[in-house]
Amino acid sequence: MQFNVSGHLEYTVRFPSTLILNIHAQKNSGQLILQENFVVQPPLARVEEFQLTDGCSRFVRLETGNAAQFTIDYTATVDCSHEIVPANTIDQTPVGEMDRSAIPYLFPSRYCQSDRLSRLAWDLFGGIPHPYDKVLAIVDWIHDNVEYVIGSTDSETSAYDTVTQRTGVCRDFAHLGIALCRALNIPARYFSGYAYQLDPPDFHACFECFVGGKWFLFDATGLAPLNGLVRIGTGRDAADSAVASTFGRVQCTLMTVDCQLAPNQQFEPLGRTQLSRNGLSLGSGRVQNSN
Amino acid sequence: MQFNVSGHLEYTVRFPSTLILNIHAQKNSGQLILQENFVVQPPLARVEEFQLTDGCSRFVRLETGNAAQFTIDYTATVDCSHEIVPANTIDQTPVGEMDRSAIPYLFPSRYCQSDRLSRLAWDLFGGIPHPYDKVLAIVDWIHDNVEYVIGSTDSETSAYDTVTQRTGVCRDFAHLGIALCRALNIPARYFSGYAYQLDPPDFHACFECFVGGKWFLFDATGLAPLNGLVRIGTGRDAADSAVASTFGRVQCTLMTVDCQLAPNQQFEPLGRTQLSRNGLSLGSGRVQNSN
Amino acid sequence: MQFNVSGHLEYTVRFPSTLILNIHAQKNSGQLILQENFVVQPPLARVEEFQLTDGCSRFVRLETGNAAQFTIDYTATVDCSHEIVPANTIDQTPVGEMDRSAIPYLFPSRYCQSDRLSRLAWDLFGGIPHPYDKVLAIVDWIHDNVEYVIGSTDSETSAYDTVTQRTGVCRDFAHLGIALCRALNIPARYFSGYAYQLDPPDFHACFECFVGGKWFLFDATGLAPLNGLVRIGTGRDAADSAVASTFGRVQCTLMTVDCQLAPNQQFEPLGRTQLSRNGLSLGSGRVQNSN
Amino acid sequence: MQFNVSGHLEYTVRFPSTLILNIHAQKNSGQLILQENFVVQPPLARVEEFQLTDGCSRFVRLETGNAAQFTIDYTATVDCSHEIVPANTIDQTPVGEMDRSAIPYLFPSRYCQSDRLSRLAWDLFGGIPHPYDKVLAIVDWIHDNVEYVIGSTDSETSAYDTVTQRTGVCRDFAHLGIALCRALNIPARYFSGYAYQLDPPDFHACFECFVGGKWFLFDATGLAPLNGLVRIGTGRDAADSAVASTFGRVQCTLMTVDCQLAPNQQFEPLGRTQLSRNGLSLGSGRVQNSN
Repeated sequence: MQFNVSGHLEYTVRFPSTLILNIHAQKNSGQLILQENFVVQPPLARVEEFQLTDGCSRFVRLETGNAAQFTIDYTATVDCSHEIVPANTIDQTPVGEMDRSAIPYLFPSRYCQSDRLSRLAWDLFGGIPHPYDKVLAIVDWIHDNVEYVIGSTDSETSAYDTVTQRTGVCRDFAHLGIALCRALNIPARYFSGYAYQLDPPDFHACFECFVGGKWFLFDATGLAPLNGLVRIGTGRDAADSAVASTFGRVQCTLMTVDCQLAPNQQFEPLGRTQLSRNGLSLGSGRVQNSN
Repeated sequence: MQFNVSGHLEYTVRFPSTLILNIHAQKNSGQLILQENFVVQPPLARVEEFQLTDGCSRFVRLETGNAAQFTIDYTATVDCSHEIVPANTIDQTPVGEMDRSAIPYLFPSRYCQSDRLSRLAWDLFGGIPHPYDKVLAIVDWIHDNVEYVIGSTDSETSAYDTVTQRTGVCRDFAHLGIALCRALNIPARYFSGYAYQLDPPDFHACFECFVGGKWFLFDATGLAPLNGLVRIGTGRDAADSAVASTFGRVQCTLMTVDCQLAPNQQFEPLGRTQLSRNGLSLGSGRVQNSN
Repeated sequence: MQFNVSGHLEYTVRFPSTLILNIHAQKNSGQLILQENFVVQPPLARVEEFQLTDGCSRFVRLETGNAAQFTIDYTATVDCSHEIVPANTIDQTPVGEMDRSAIPYLFPSRYCQSDRLSRLAWDLFGGIPHPYDKVLAIVDWIHDNVEYVIGSTDSETSAYDTVTQRTGVCRDFAHLGIALCRALNIPARYFSGYAYQLDPPDFHACFECFVGGKWFLFDATGLAPLNGLVRIGTGRDAADSAVASTFGRVQCTLMTVDCQLAPNQQFEPLGRTQLSRNGLSLGSGRVQNSN
Repeated sequence: MQFNVSGHLEYTVRFPSTLILNIHAQKNSGQLILQENFVVQPPLARVEEFQLTDGCSRFVRLETGNAAQFTIDYTATVDCSHEIVPANTIDQTPVGEMDRSAIPYLFPSRYCQSDRLSRLAWDLFGGIPHPYDKVLAIVDWIHDNVEYVIGSTDSETSAYDTVTQRTGVCRDFAHLGIALCRALNIPARYFSGYAYQLDPPDFHACFECFVGGKWFLFDATGLAPLNGLVRIGTGRDAADSAVASTFGRVQCTLMTVDCQLAPNQQFEPLGRTQLSRNGLSLGSGRVQNSN
């Protein structure tokens, strides 16, 4: 499935600063970039794209220098190979046999304090035999118990808060899902991306769990079809995968995001019922040749 | 400098479980393993050593199978190349020019909520011009304001607690140092290791900061000389670098640790005064050929 | 019902200090003290009994002076008038018609952050029409979801922790019950007391809720029959009702507590089934003539 | 000194609800009400003024019934007898000799977790011999280390947060002052009131400490002269002394507050220098005849 995605960001600079952006669609086994364009206006002192070794999130580091303001425009056409896997063919993966690359995603992180949610997770979901079904139950539980309320949380809100306060936005839903999965020894990681049919359009966040040797996508908000997601960031939580991390003093004054079907594409949203019988995977989130 | 290190751990198993141990000395540009031995008694169903891509911490994954108890014995002779760098030759490294591999260590993590300590860090240390001097001041501040009290904290204690509660053990001292550095845009990571002259002998934890293109060691506890440290784990915080992560039900019933000078070695502890004029580095914590 | 209660405490003094003890059985409309004896050995510089205006908890303030150690012995025979009220006769009491003396117990306190548990409380229990039934459901929920584990919590643990971490002791069970009730606009307060048939014998804590103009007792631990409780302290939470608050440096080295039936008394423990049909009240916790 | 104070509040009702307002100036040994007027428009089903036994905060309980909206108007002329006490005449008051009515203000409360700030408080201020000087040092420390930033905190922010996050509004400054004082065994309580020369006009919050047998006023924000304060609420913290506690669903849509000098009054603001040499007291906050 091909999508045209775009992000437009405007910044005001108060002081020479550094930004690390994470808005590029990933290139990996699940995503092919057919074309893309990244423009900074006016051109800044330094603009550098890079990747970290443990994934293929594509970062851009910008030095504002003495610019007073600047805009970012990113557009891409991305071919996503969402893979549908019948749930009854997904194996269990005990920690002892798990692919090593998944192990870091077993540990607690800034916003996903799985260590503190352990007993609650086992009480609620420990009796469900298969890990894939455990995650489905977690997604349902979050969906049923946490209300999506814009503005109800802030950048310090973590899974430990959300499990009790029971409101949040997509980021909070993802953090709680991740924390509960890790508490049950299921590797889980943060997914940020473009989302087709998300209303209003914005960057979206959800999460992936590693079951039976694959990373499967889950979204407890239910706000966008899983097969309409285009991957940007992969990380332990939002601390790793922020759209923008700023060092210095810059302020984002405008952000618009878009995700459309490319011409001649047919889209059939994957519904909740199908997802209870089928896992959806969007590749490993690692570079193609090392997958 | 060569050290003979050893760790002896005894476990009781209540239920078939998986353990991930991190007690092997690292092999990297700063450490050469002259000999080592790792024995599990009785032999378990599965014992596998592995490394993750983003560092060279050496993990061992063990499957207990139906064993009721087992012991771990690790011994090694390690040649550590501690590098002493005159402080006045250490460059500043703005985020915009920083080696990319250091960037993940700028972000908050489970036990090091640098985002919440930001204002305090800038108030206390923001006026110090050079990042190396900032870290020295942080180490002094922690040393002066946090009391080392065994048993005063637990596995949930984080830097956000320690900055106010002001007691802790080596792990808490490290977490607070890391959080304060990251809050000041200085990459900082957790260091676990064997420590010569640590009394009583135990695994030790301190931290490293990335300044001027190198990782420098710091220890706010002052309990062991920096040039007597042998690196085991490198991580964002203790969540990444636990001596043992257990999945299932096993209990550690005994742990003894030792770190001695190898024969014919001369050791001169590096004191506080020297460290204010000299940084101490123990390699990059990455594999030799990729350094 | 008459009980013989006793408390024996031994203290070591490191530095001249003040203690505020709260171990005397209350005198009020629900409790008559038939005889009592309070002895401090050796006699201290100053020993003063007092009450605060908003209840009738009986405090003793002790000045250690230069004593190196001392012991406290309290014994009493207390006649408790536990009142049984058929649940179907208990009225609702909207906040607008509530007795004013109950209003302070609607607000959050140190260990009972009802403000943060509000949404969870309404989600779980908001649909139950009658406040008495709401409290019964809360007690059942805590009993089913929180495990009584000695040593699993400390003096900083609050309801906000317990609702997620799901372990605790009687104090934690009480705090969670109080917080959930207040979140539902039901006044709730902390009850500390002697408890017949508590095993092992100790001071006990549970909570009271104000419904239909009376304070009813509830105990989510289920460890002691409600009609075997002798009231000591009434407060917002354990911060108000500590057995001992110390100012200075003293250490409690021994504490033994006992609660026996007085001779010729017949005791029939009130079971869970009866409590679902009957509320149990032990007076208002206020002095007799002002009740 | 006589002040004309007023508060105007507008509410929209979504559902029949109860409000408890605390906007009346207190009547006590430090304040004489020369005239006052309280009007609810349209008249509501039930409006009842009351006081609780442990202070003389004057609450009004309102039943909205089926009103869709209503307005509150309160005006009063209050004669405040601010008492100035030379600091060098203020006695120490050890806990052992303290007036009993002050004792509840030694314990931690919802927003003032003095138990968790204990070591920090003793480290920073424990060496200052006189409790009045301790409080002055606390006020200076908060003033120097916490920045007044409107909107930087919310209703869940507590002293434990503010001591690290170091931003807040008057309520947060008060909570931190209270928590630090209690940690040092100095009774401290929350003061809400009208404040002359506060810009922009609003309800104000600061705190009182009990030293040498009197309650002295302190304000770490420095935003209003202490001798321009008119007392509304006295409580352990903002949980006790909210301007409005709502039970149900009402929304405050407008709030305007005013505090002016009554005609023919001369006002000389008490400055920081004078306050270091003089304590300022505004009565005990208890009813006149029981003072």
